Amino acid sequence: MTTATPGLLALDPAAQDLLFREAHTTNGFTDEPVSDELIKAVYELVKYAPTAFNQQPLRVVLVRSAEARERLVGLMSDGNKEKTAKAPLVAILAADYEFHEELPKLVPHFPQAKDVIFGERPVREQAGSFNATLQVGYFILGIRAAGLAAGPMTGFDAAGIDKAFFPDGDHSVLAVVNIGKPAKDGWFPRNPRLAYDEVVTTV
Amino acid sequence: MTTATPGLLALDPAAQDLLFREAHTTNGFTDEPVSDELIKAVYELVKYAPTAFNQQPLRVVLVRSAEARERLVGLMSDGNKEKTAKAPLVAILAADYEFHEELPKLVPHFPQAKDVIFGERPVREQAGSFNATLQVGYFILGIRAAGLAAGPMTGFDAAGIDKAFFPDGDHSVLAVVNIGKPAKDGWFPRNPRLAYDEVVTTV
Repeated sequence: MTTATPGLLALDPAAQDLLFREAHTTNGFTDEPVSDELIKAVYELVKYAPTAFNQQPLRVVLVRSAEARERLVGLMSDGNKEKTAKAPLVAILAADYEFHEELPKLVPHFPQAKDVIFGERPVREQAGSFNATLQVGYFILGIRAAGLAAGPMTGFDAAGIDKAFFPDGDHSVLAVVNIGKPAKDGWFPRNPRLAYDEVVTTV
Repeated sequence: MTTATPGLLALDPAAQDLLFREAHTTNGFTDEPVSDELIKAVYELVKYAPTAFNQQPLRVVLVRSAEARERLVGLMSDGNKEKTAKAPLVAILAADYEFHEELPKLVPHFPQAKDVIFGERPVREQAGSFNATLQVGYFILGIRAAGLAAGPMTGFDAAGIDKAFFPDGDHSVLAVVNIGKPAKDGWFPRNPRLAYDEVVTTV
């Protein structure tokens, strides 16, 4: 395992392993259920991570009923159907394009942001998608922080999921995430990562 | 400080505090420089966090020279200029829309994905923006993992930054992040977060 200069970081090595180095996108899980209480603990942690203007546009739907699971599986890409059917818990992560309704509560020093900055739907769609996507990243790491494995997926019929799960027309699915304890051999071998010099440049 | 059920999580409480509960978007920093070595340690950690198809479309430009800093500050929104001018280090985070060129190396089991899935630029722009935005979230938490504070910003002239810093026309800025050790009173009081029941529903 490559562990370049982990000692430089303030985060302790066990936490580095849990969240990043030893965590893998997971396709196979044990049967152990995932409680609402644990998902709440994840949320109560990751809610603190930043969004622009404190927008917090991410919304999460926990797919618990057999009927809803079946509906969702039917809307996943073929390669994602079986693992989505079998995972202990599946969450739909979506952006709420009407997030601005909450802003007077969320940015009390500037309540008029709701209308002055975010009055137009296209502005909210752009900002809501961007910031909810940041929150998808935080949520994935939060699942790992709970000692669980995440299997995030973007292969699905997005319009179909929006229609089936968000009939108000104000939400857009960003990712579907399988959640549970990883089974033995629950993931594929890690693929290569880009080298630092391929990603980071200096001007 | 609200610390709902932190004991349920596998991540130890000190790490929870470092990454989430006691971390704040920071506007004021000490003069202490941020080394390339430390940024490399951040990258070597967060590179493991997942992207769809292992795309890794995020690119990072560290703005070190006075000339580049001045150019960037001129393209920031008025409210972001002073803190961007003063931060020990500023990073431009962008999506690379030509990320598919690396895919034969990054998904060696399916090298034809480069053309079969990502041959069209609009597909790459959508996927690249989404996945690089996930990576922006990981990078912000990685800065905190290094014991540094992050001040991520989205208020800037995006087309101007793309033109000034990515003249190839193949990159799109997603965020600009000030990085350093936080000064005393380097942040504003925390704004409210949405309650669990406002964000998470069950079907």
